[in-house]
Formats: sequence, C-alpha cells, structure tokens
Amino acid sequence: MPPIFRAAVALVALLLVVPASAQEADPLPSWNDGPTKEAIVAFVEKVTDEGGADYVPPADRIATFDNDGNLWAEKPVYFQLLFAIDRVKALAPEHPEWKDKQPFKAAIEGDMETLAKSGHEGIAELVMASHAGMSTQQFQKIVSAWLATAEHPRFKRKYTDLVYQPMLELLSYLRNNGFTTYIVSGGGIEFVRNFSEEKYGIPPAQVVGSSIKTKYEVIDGEPTLMRLAEMNFINDKEGKPIGINQHIAQRPIFASGNSDGDYQMLEWTTAGEGPSFGLILHHTDPEREYAYDRDSAVGRLDKALDDALDKGWIVIDMKKDWNRVFPAAE
Amino acid sequence: MPPIFRAAVALVALLLVVPASAQEADPLPSWNDGPTKEAIVAFVEKVTDEGGADYVPPADRIATFDNDGNLWAEKPVYFQLLFAIDRVKALAPEHPEWKDKQPFKAAIEGDMETLAKSGHEGIAELVMASHAGMSTQQFQKIVSAWLATAEHPRFKRKYTDLVYQPMLELLSYLRNNGFTTYIVSGGGIEFVRNFSEEKYGIPPAQVVGSSIKTKYEVIDGEPTLMRLAEMNFINDKEGKPIGINQHIAQRPIFASGNSDGDYQMLEWTTAGEGPSFGLILHHTDPEREYAYDRDSAVGRLDKALDDALDKGWIVIDMKKDWNRVFPAAE
Repeated sequence: MPPIFRAAVALVALLLVVPASAQEADPLPSWNDGPTKEAIVAFVEKVTDEGGADYVPPADRIATFDNDGNLWAEKPVYFQLLFAIDRVKALAPEHPEWKDKQPFKAAIEGDMETLAKSGHEGIAELVMASHAGMSTQQFQKIVSAWLATAEHPRFKRKYTDLVYQPMLELLSYLRNNGFTTYIVSGGGIEFVRNFSEEKYGIPPAQVVGSSIKTKYEVIDGEPTLMRLAEMNFINDKEGKPIGINQHIAQRPIFASGNSDGDYQMLEWTTAGEGPSFGLILHHTDPEREYAYDRDSAVGRLDKALDDALDKGWIVIDMKKDWNRVFPAAE
Repeated sequence: MPPIFRAAVALVALLLVVPASAQEADPLPSWNDGPTKEAIVAFVEKVTDEGGADYVPPADRIATFDNDGNLWAEKPVYFQLLFAIDRVKALAPEHPEWKDKQPFKAAIEGDMETLAKSGHEGIAELVMASHAGMSTQQFQKIVSAWLATAEHPRFKRKYTDLVYQPMLELLSYLRNNGFTTYIVSGGGIEFVRNFSEEKYGIPPAQVVGSSIKTKYEVIDGEPTLMRLAEMNFINDKEGKPIGINQHIAQRPIFASGNSDGDYQMLEWTTAGEGPSFGLILHHTDPEREYAYDRDSAVGRLDKALDDALDKGWIVIDMKKDWNRVFPAAE
C-alpha cells in the first residue's frame, strides 16, 4: 500500500477510536469507592479478560436481579400490593358486597393493619380480585395507567421513579461488558414486564416472575388470553432456580438480591463451576430510603445475611456504598 | 478535508462493502421458485422496508417454529418417544418388574402396536420413567449421549441429521433480516434445548416447550434441580399461545407449524395487529420423507388444512416446494 494511503487509513482508524476520557469515565458514579465497588469491578474485569484464567464467554455472562427492594423500593409494602389495593378501590362500586367482606373492606378503607392480619390468604384474595378476570392485554393497560399516575405515599413520586440509580448503572455496566441481564422476581411476571424495558433496559422476554394461569379462548372471533384466578407458579425462594432454569436455561454467573427470598438464587448461582458473584443489598439508610432486615415482614433479610461471609456473597451497605439512591427528579 | 484524504476515506469505505454477488445469492436455495417461496420473501421484504406501510421494527420481528415434523422429522413416531423407549430398555436390568408390566414390557420388546394401544396414559408412564428421577444436568447428559449415537430406523442417520434443510435456510434468512427465532414445541423443553443451538442456531433460552415439574434441593451440599414425575405444562394446541406469552412476552408476527397442534399458535399470531404470516408444512413426499395429514396419529393435519385458505396461511407442499429435504450426509 502506498505510504499516503497507509497514512490515510491510519487517520480514519484514529477517527473511529473512542476518546480516552470517555473510556475512563466511571461507569458506576453513584457507587462510593470502597470494597463493594472494587469487588464488582474486579469480577467484571476478570471474566471479560480474554487471556485470563477466569474468562467467561459472553454467551455465558448471565446476570439475574431480584426486583422488589433490589431494583426499586418495596416499602411500606410491595408496590404491586399497593396496585391491588388501588384496583380493589376502583372496582368497589361494581362490588357492593365488598363493603362488609374482608379483606376487601380493609383495602377499601385503607386499613393496612387489618389487611396485614388477613395473612397470605387475604392477600391472595385481593391479588386474584385485582389481577384476574381480564385479558392479558387489558391487564397491561390497567397496570400502565396505574404506574403513570399513582404516587408513593412517602416520596410523592411515581413508583417507577423509585428505582435505584446505582442499580441502573450496574445493569448498564454489566450489559456494556457483554452480560445479558434478567429480572428474576417474586412479583408478577406480567406486572413487572410493563416497565422493565423502559426503566431497566430489560426486555419483557428477560423477565422471570410469579404468574397466575391463563386460558386461551376465541371470544367474539378474537383470540384472547384470559387471566384466571388460579396460581400458576411462585417465583420465590426455591422457585427462583426453577424459574431461571425454565426461562433462561442456563445457570447465571452473577446474582443480585436483597432478601431471604433470593437465598436459593444466590446459592444456585454461586455453586456453579467457574467464577460467580453473589450480591446482597442491605437496606441501611432510613433517611434517604429505609432501614430493615431481620424483622421486616416485607423483604426479610436474615439467613442470607448470616451466611453471606461464608458463601462469599458481597453485601452492599446502602448508606455507605451509595452516594445517591433514586434518580434525580425530572 | 483535503481531497487526498477524502479519496482515501472513500477507498477504505469501498473495502468495507460486501461484494454484490454475495448480496444477491439466493438465501433459500432449497426452496423451488413458486408461490410459497415468493410469499415468504415478499413478507420479509415488506416488514423490513423502512419506508413502507408494513414496516415492523426489529424488536417486534418474532418468529415461532414448531419442532416435530416442522424443523425435524416425526415419523415413525416422535423422536422423543423413541428416546423414552431406548431409555426404558437401558434401565430394564434395574427394573425386573417391567418384564411383566405394560407398557414397559411392550417398550422393552419393541412391540409398537401394544405400545400404541396403551394410549396417552401408557405413553405418559414411559415418559415419566425415562425423563424423571434425575437432575437436570444428568438428564442433559443422557439425552446428549442418545442423540450422539441413536439412529433413525429408516434413514440410518442420527436424528439430528433429520432436520429439514429448507427450514434451516428459512431460520437463517429470518435472522439475517432482524427476526428473533424461537422454537415453540409440544416436545419437552429440556429435550429440545439439547440440540437447538447447534442444529438450528436457536439458543436454549429461545426454546419453549412442554415440561415436567422440577424441585430445588441441596443434596450432599450440592444445589440440584431434580426432575419430578409430574406434569408441569403441556405446550400444545391452546397451550402454545400461553407458552408464547409466558416466555416470549409478545405476539409473534411469523408462525410456522405442521399439525393441528399448531392451530392456536397460527391463529394467535395471524390475529395480531399489523402484518403477520402463518406457514404450514404439508408432508406430501413419501419417497424422500413421508406423506401424511388427516389420518395420522402423529402430526395430524386436518382442521388447519381446512382453514388455511380462509385464514390466509401459506401451505408448503413438501414434494413440490422443496428441492432438498435433509442436509447432505457429512
């Protein structure tokens, strides 16, 4: 090649190179420097180092994230339960019998104490009344409308604004390093899919969650998937590795959760051959968010906290490790 | 920019362009020219035409394919049933009671007539005896070993060699045009996942299928997913749109099947808003493969064939439309 062309080719090649400043920008600016951030970065660097002993090819770089209390907040109670309560209130005029029937009476009156006392069965009744009996498309519209308008009682912001900024950065950082990111939630699969792409950059097919049964039927010539008041699968605790196997079909190398409901996902992930990473978010920040762990009914973190050191799971101290919790208000 | 640089940039750009001959090569060489091939190409061209009225963005280009009798052969019976029979034979020494117990006796003796008479319940018994009671990892090894050695009784080739060459070309053609391809099979999800990537270029997470329940337990310190002798989900007929919704989370725009078991998948797909395509493979070639439809116990094609014209589904005539059925022997 004549030298002039060689020089021109080199020039063009140079133009294609990303400026050094952009390359060196911190991909995790909301994470304070310290052992937690260092451990995350060290793991990503070692599994992406093609010459290294711990290299993992991109197809095997699977990362799973719990949602409630891990990607967005979960207090005072799971946001999906707040949706169920709002939905029961909205449907109350069509159900006069609910006025005198628990747990509906408590939901309509906003009596959270009585509601809590109704236990799993009461909650299940509320969920079925609010989540079943419509098509999947209708449900999607109902959830989207609620997410667009409902406000968190303490923060007075939309629920989808209460996602954790440091976790958004972590998701992007992993994806930019060839990971595929999944949500593996105890929450409803069709609830979370409504906002997973817009808020987390995770497409609906990469959301694994709990589900009720659906029925396929042609109604007035229109093929329809109707949502039935019957549990299909509970994607929590032992259910998480099962859901992962069913949907993702391979073992993750990175798992992130915040409660004992994530214990088995962390255990399954970090028992795999080759390098793996378990991450636990410990809520320690009552000022900016909440502080809770062993005694919390929602998001109880007890056994996983006890075993973290022994298992090599990294515990995020929200107060210490994060310099920001939620994204700035728009 | 000085002219000399501009010329050099143009030269470099030119070097990056694919030669015209490669661009114009027929992406479907095993498909004969005619209305079937024309309809497929016309559909792909219109949904990828960015300026056109029927343009579909890549994220919505979802294509679903049935497996048995659609991507690979299914005669004399589903290959997975032949696996179950071979597995029962291999396990027979550990189960002396099977010698006198149907349907095991028939399976061990290769008495297909008695086996057929045992009906769905008999088949289910065989499937559970051969598919359950081991971990998901053990099952994977067992299936892989069988696929690597077992031979088809008529063609004397490995089962994974009996994939349809024209369908392999169609899968590649769709993917090269921005589609994401999924398998949506009545067969076992963990059976098909063993060869989907290598044979079809479809990664395990993009396989939807029937499943038995699994249980997560820690055995001798080792987290394990055990396969249970209990049905979880039957991904056939009305089950296919349900499985699609559960795993893919959006409605396909292209569906390909070969039996009435695919009717609801075709119906669901082609009832969506916007352009869609339904494709039915009609087995009409007793010389190169098989000829069967309305009266076949395996892969019965009856109602879907009746309704194809009315629904606008395109029917492949294997004998007429394909100039090759299986890939050349290696």
